[in-house]
Parts: sequence; structure tokens; C-alpha cells
Amino acid sequence: MGEDQQIPDAAGLSRRGLMGLAVGAGAAGLAIGGGAGIASGVALGRARERRTADAVASGDGIHQPGITTPVQDHLHFAAFDMMARTTRDDVASLLQDWTYAANRMMQGLEVSATGAVGGSPEAPPDDTGEALGLPASNLTITFGFGPSLFDERFGLAAQRPAGLERLPAFLGDDLDPERSDGDLCIQACADDPQVAVHAIRNLSRIAFGRARIRWSQLGFGRTSKTTSDQATPRNLFGFKDGTANILADDAAALDENVWVSASEGPAWLAGGSYLVARRIAMLIETWDRVRLSEQDRIVGRDKARGAPLSGGDEFTAPDFAATDGSGTPRIDARSHVRLAHPDQNGGIRILRRGYNFVDGNTDLGRLNAGLFFLSFQRSPDRYITVQRALATDAMAEYIRHVGSGLWAVPPAPAAGQSIGAGLLGA
Amino acid sequence: MGEDQQIPDAAGLSRRGLMGLAVGAGAAGLAIGGGAGIASGVALGRARERRTADAVASGDGIHQPGITTPVQDHLHFAAFDMMARTTRDDVASLLQDWTYAANRMMQGLEVSATGAVGGSPEAPPDDTGEALGLPASNLTITFGFGPSLFDERFGLAAQRPAGLERLPAFLGDDLDPERSDGDLCIQACADDPQVAVHAIRNLSRIAFGRARIRWSQLGFGRTSKTTSDQATPRNLFGFKDGTANILADDAAALDENVWVSASEGPAWLAGGSYLVARRIAMLIETWDRVRLSEQDRIVGRDKARGAPLSGGDEFTAPDFAATDGSGTPRIDARSHVRLAHPDQNGGIRILRRGYNFVDGNTDLGRLNAGLFFLSFQRSPDRYITVQRALATDAMAEYIRHVGSGLWAVPPAPAAGQSIGAGLLGA
Ligand code: HEM
Ligand code: HEM
Repeated sequence: MGEDQQIPDAAGLSRRGLMGLAVGAGAAGLAIGGGAGIASGVALGRARERRTADAVASGDGIHQPGITTPVQDHLHFAAFDMMARTTRDDVASLLQDWTYAANRMMQGLEVSATGAVGGSPEAPPDDTGEALGLPASNLTITFGFGPSLFDERFGLAAQRPAGLERLPAFLGDDLDPERSDGDLCIQACADDPQVAVHAIRNLSRIAFGRARIRWSQLGFGRTSKTTSDQATPRNLFGFKDGTANILADDAAALDENVWVSASEGPAWLAGGSYLVARRIAMLIETWDRVRLSEQDRIVGRDKARGAPLSGGDEFTAPDFAATDGSGTPRIDARSHVRLAHPDQNGGIRILRRGYNFVDGNTDLGRLNAGLFFLSFQRSPDRYITVQRALATDAMAEYIRHVGSGLWAVPPAPAAGQSIGAGLLGA
Repeated sequence: MGEDQQIPDAAGLSRRGLMGLAVGAGAAGLAIGGGAGIASGVALGRARERRTADAVASGDGIHQPGITTPVQDHLHFAAFDMMARTTRDDVASLLQDWTYAANRMMQGLEVSATGAVGGSPEAPPDDTGEALGLPASNLTITFGFGPSLFDERFGLAAQRPAGLERLPAFLGDDLDPERSDGDLCIQACADDPQVAVHAIRNLSRIAFGRARIRWSQLGFGRTSKTTSDQATPRNLFGFKDGTANILADDAAALDENVWVSASEGPAWLAGGSYLVARRIAMLIETWDRVRLSEQDRIVGRDKARGAPLSGGDEFTAPDFAATDGSGTPRIDARSHVRLAHPDQNGGIRILRRGYNFVDGNTDLGRLNAGLFFLSFQRSPDRYITVQRALATDAMAEYIRHVGSGLWAVPPAPAAGQSIGAGLLGA
């Protein structure tokens, strides 16, 4: 991270005092048991000052970064719940503080002007310090609002987009509530895992007394191709993943499939999107015993080149009508690619941006591994349509959906505003 | 990974048949419940053929790679236990197979000549495929033998080095047996996590029916400086870590502190070392509330530059006698650096090669984070001396040792031999 660089907020105040206050008060709050009361006191104090959201958080100024940004090497994703007895003002102040810190970190700066080592030696540093000296590493921080944020607690029910509810149960779901849902989510992606982890850690710290991590997930090795010059990476089944993905420069496909238009959603979500996360365990030891021809059949593409089994190379369009000599479809009726393909789903496409994960091993000595599937789409029902189509997927035998979440991803804030300003009026 | 490249074994056989056999038989063994019987049958069949260990596994031909190799960005570490009813021959054949596959993978090749996609479509591929197309990424694979390998099971008791026993209990230990020990260990380090994971996954697969993973750990963001041109990285307390480490080009310090000499150990271990792993949870939220001056005091160095509190820059030797105006030692008596320093430990130095980890979060919404501490030393008691010295470490309040293991790391095999040939005579 670069050296300290003063970014004054709108009120011209140094951020330092606020950060010190928040952390100090938070710690005190904890000591007296709970902290929500004190934290809202702090938040109220903060809400009186307006701070500037820097242009960076806005990515292209319209959409948040981390959606069409070329996919980075590492992910730290965290879902947060607001704490008991927090208020709408707490949500608003948290988003202000997060916006401020996220903007700084995406520039490779510490979370505040004094940061890890520039403050008073007699106070805890604002920044935890492990990213000192590291470049920004293409860090993007993307915020989302879960269905539960719109329940009775914060007076936001009237602004809930119609489709923003928990995803329906899908065939075969084996969801762990402790790896699902959350009032808020943050997707931090960077080419250095220490930078992604630093971002989540510091945002979690800033949330102290207001929100806390419900669950989090690290991921590596992009499984999604998102620009035409990226080589298609491989998932843990050893197959190329992302071949038919929506590319960042395909503005028409993005408008059609990813961005919420001004006419359809609540106004605060125009230019935003919906983020689905599915933690999908892969039964890799079982998969590894499947013969190559069967693996190919299940996917509908060949493992070596990623070409559709109807012929051609990786980027040839699959021909679902093609049959072999005996009249059998070359691309199996139950293959993943056929069932997920827009041709079978009324033209629907989704923007996939998932990561591989390996979280140690199970008691049976098997790697606890899989795909942390992330996708962005213009409406939740588009995702639901595709996943329902996969009900008869031949791949289903080798995977298990163990976590799930859906969040509305607001657009980038206007200059000087915070993430979610359209929703919270801050 | 590069394209298929036939590396014939000593018997001139294609590796393909063996791999197919092992996996096929293993799967069948599983189906009939257990597999150890069949697996030993396979292993016995294998032991009759001698295979060539390539020069790569030998690193510099004397020591295994992954010890003085410039520390890579990512780690996947796994501890294995031999399965019930396996024999000494199983251990020997496993090490032969591991040596063969490790040598190939360290060259950026697939585990066998036919690999992920070059075999019969009617057989499961030898290689799981997720590293296809990726460079070798400086992969190193380092093998170790735990104390339990020398119990009554394999007839190796007489060859156990005297110091190779479970580490003694240390003050404050809070060890989880499921994250400790293991008959064998493999340290895979690479600059791409997918390459490190691919290595452990495929070695674990090759072990099928003979050994299985007891526990495993991923790590990122080197916490150890190991060459003079590497900038000192930071650990999750935000401090530079590795400043005073033994550097790879310091042959005298390595001979003195890291390599087992021909005269002291069993002959099979000459040129080897002892590897200690400690999974150390860091109470980062608590640490983050400690004031900067206190953090500095606990470490004995300043957070910004990593300079000893006695003055100078990062690489100035600490002056433990220096006092401030009031006669107080500048480097606190309980500081980590003072207690760990060779001056306080009869000149002992250890080679640290640890990694940061973040494994999701706890139920309390705190990040489950810490240091996966790895060190190499000439004898276990050298490590024990340093850790005992840390009994009064001021840092102890902020960390918890939750996993532990000790392994003897044999030297590199001679050309044409396998890892551990000196021990197993293979
Ligand atoms: C572990 C689970 C999964 C694995 C291993 C997997 C793997 C793959 C592979 C190898 C491809 C072909 C290459 C490509 O176009 O990217 C693919 C395509 C695709 N997958 Fe998945 N996938 C998984 C889960 C899902 C889920 C949960 C969804 C959505 C509900 C999904 C939707 C798609 C779509 C839309 C395509 C592109 C189809 C096309 O347009 O040709 N996948 N997937
Ligand atoms: C989470 C736990 C630990 C943390 C955060 C930590 C951190 C540090 C830091 C910041 C330094 C100073 C910079 C340097 O020379 O690298 C250091 C030095 C050192 N640490 Fe640790 N350490 C930890 C655990 C251990 C353990 C378990 C041992 C061995 C039992 C150990 C042995 C050493 C040694 C030998 C030095 C060098 C002392 C010198 O020669 O100046 N550390 N450690």
C-alpha cells in the first residue's frame, strides 16, 4: 500500500478521529456487553457529517467494480448481519464508512489517512497493517443487500425489489444456514490474497458494534473467463470454465442480462444487478474415478480443449441437434452445457464469476473442495430458471449445493455519495 | 502444465498401466469395504518394479527442495496416516510413486505420461487436470516422516532418530489432535494456489488404499523472508516477518542450524532436516485493539519499519542492553524478538518458512486466522529450546497454538532412487 495520503471528507475533518472513536467506543461497548447501544451512538454522531465517496468505488461511475472487472486471482467473500437493536441510521452510517474505506483500499491506500503506523502510538492503529507495502493488486470491493435487510427492522420493506427473497429450494439442496444468506455481503477480489483478506478484515473491523460476519469464504484460481484475452481457466473437475461466459466488453449482452434497467426495478437499483452465491461442494474423489468419456459426456464438452462434443474448437457454438451414426445426440440430453445453455432457457445468460475453494479436508480424509459459484444477473428469476433447468443435470451426482445467498447489488454511488445512498438517502 | 512427455521408469514400463491399476483397484477396494487388502496387493505388485526418481526431486541433489527454495506465494500442506494393515512394502511403494509423480509435477508435467486427457477415454484419467495449461509455478514438494512411522507397524523402530518424538507439551498449548501429527507429511509450495492444490490432490489420490490425509492446511502470503532480495513480508499482526531469518545463501548458518550432519543422526537422515509445523491461531480482533506502542513493545521491533526498538533500521542488530533515560530496556524483557533471539538461546537459529491462513470465521463472527508456522532445524531440541524460551512471551496472550507436528525430512534421493530410499532400502 502506498504511503499515507490525506483524503479529506466532505466536512473537511480528518478521518482519524472518527476511526479512533469507533474502535474505542466499540471496544468499550463490548466490555459492557453487547455494544449495539454505544455503536448506534457513534453512528448517529457520524451520520451528522457527510463524507465524500471517492470516484473509485463507482468503477465506471455507473456500476460497482468487481462485476465486469477482469476477474482477479483471489476472493474473500463475507456475508454480514446487522447486530441486534441497530437502526436504519446504523445501516446508513456503516455504508458511509465502508464506502470511504473501500475507496481508499481500492487505491492501494490504508483505511484512513493515519493508517497502520501514522497515528498516535497511544491508540490502536486504524489499519491492521498487513497490506503495508503491497500494491492495490486490482482490488475491487462490491457490496450487496440481502432480502433480510428489508424486513421490519430498518423500515426498508417498502423499497424491497419484488424478486429479492431467499432463493427457492432446489432439488438436491443440502444448505447449511451458517453458510447461507446475510443482511449484507462484500465481495473482495484481488490478485494478492493478503490484499483481499486485508479488505474484509478492515471492513469487518469498521462494522464493529453494528454488523458482524455471518460467514465468509476464500477462493482462488478464477473459474471464470471474463475478458476475451483471458485464457479460460479450469475448475477442480479439470474442465475449462467460463468458455461461454458473458464478456466484459459485450455491452449489449450485459444490458440484456446483467444490469437492472431504470424501468424494471426500484429506482435505487437501476444500474445495479443481483448477485447469487452458491457454495458447491465437489465430490472430487468420486469424479476422479469417472472415465474420461463419461466426464466429457456429463459436461457436454471435451476435457482437453473445452470444445462442444458436437465438434469444432472451444469457441464453436454447440450444435445440440447433431447426432452420431446411430442417431444419439452428440451433446447428451442431460449434459450440463445443454441444460444451462440459453437455447434451453429462453435466451437467458448469466455472468459467472466464481472461484475454486479448498477448505482443508473432511473427517474421511477427503479434500473439502469445490466451486464457490458467483453470478450476476438482471433478476433473481433468471438465475432460478437456469438452476431449475439443471434439475436433471448429469453433473448433479458429483456436486452438492451447501451454501446459498442472494443480494441486490446497488449501482455505483454518485460522486460524493455512499453505496446505497439511493436506498437510504445518505 | 506442459504437454505429455514420456518419462520412462527404470523398468522401462509406461507409468500409465500402474496408475490405471492403482486407481481401478482402489475404487474396487472401496466398493467391497476398506480397500487395504487390495491396496496392499497392488502395492506389492508395484514394489517388484523399481522406478527412477528424477533429478528434480533432489533440488540441489543433496537436500530436498522447499527448504532453502525462495519462499513461494502459496502453500498446501497435508499430513497423512498409513491405513490399517498396510506394510513396510506399502510405505516403500508409496514413496516410490510419490517421488515419481512429484518429480513430474515439479517440472510442470502431469502426474503420468498420459495425464489428464492423453489416456484411454474408457479409463479415469491419471491426472485430475486442473493444472493443465498452468506453468510449474516454482512448485516444490517436500516429504517428511513423522514419529509414528517408526512405531511397531513397519519394522522401522530401530531406525528412528532419537529426537523424533511428538513435541513435548508447551505452556498454553491448546492442540487439536485432528490438526496435529501424521505418519507422513507433504509440503507443497507454489506461486499459484491451483498448482499447490493440484499436487496434494494428486499425491493423495496416488496414496489411495495405502495412506490418507489426516489433516491439511492452505496458506498464502509468505510470512518469511528467505533470500536477501525478497522484501520482508508482513504477518497478520501487520508486522514484518522474517527479518532475522536464515537466508538461503548463508551456507555456514544452514550447516550449523538446519542440516543434519553425517555424524549426528542415523545415516539415512544425513543432509536432511527436521520440520516443525504449528498451527497458531491469532486473536486478531483483540490484537487490533492494542495501542501501537504496545504492539511494538510486544514484538520488540517497530511496526512501520521492522527496526529493533534499540534503534537503527530493519537490519540493524538488536541491542538488548540498550536502555532509555530511566534505565528501562528499550527492547522489553518479555518481547518476542528478545526471547526468540539466538543470544538468549545459546546461539540457536531456526529457518522459518510459515504462511498466513484465513479459514473462514468462527461462530462469533471473527475471522479464523493465524500463522501456519513452519520451521526447519537440525534437531528437534533446537526448536524446543526456542519455543520454551517463548514461555513468558508477551505475544502469547494474542495467539493460541492449536495444531502441531514434527517430521524428519530425509535428504534428496540419489539419482534413480526414491525419497526415503536410505530408510526403506528402495
Ligand atoms: C460445481 C458446479 C459446476 C461446475 C463444475 C460447472 C462447470 C461448467 C462447465 C465446465 C461449463 C462449460 C464451459 C463454460 O461455458 O463455462 C459450464 C457452463 C455453464 N454453467 Fe456451469 N458448472 C457448475 C455449476 C453451475 C451452476 C450452479 C449454474 C447456474 C445455475 C451453472 C451455469 C452454467 C452456464 C449458464 C453455463 C454456460 C452454458 C452455455 O451457454 O454454453 N453452472 N459450467
Ligand atoms: C503467531 C505467532 C508468531 C508471530 C506473529 C511471530 C512474529 C515474529 C516477528 C514479527 C518477528 C520479528 C521479525 C523477524 O525477525 O522475523 C519474529 C521473530 C522471530 N520469531 Fe516469531 N512469531 C510467531 C511465532 C513464533 C514461534 C512459534 C517461534 C519458534 C518457537 C518463533 C521464533 C522466532 C524467531 C527465532 C525469530 C527471530 C528472532 C531474532 O533472531 O531476532 N516465532 N517473530
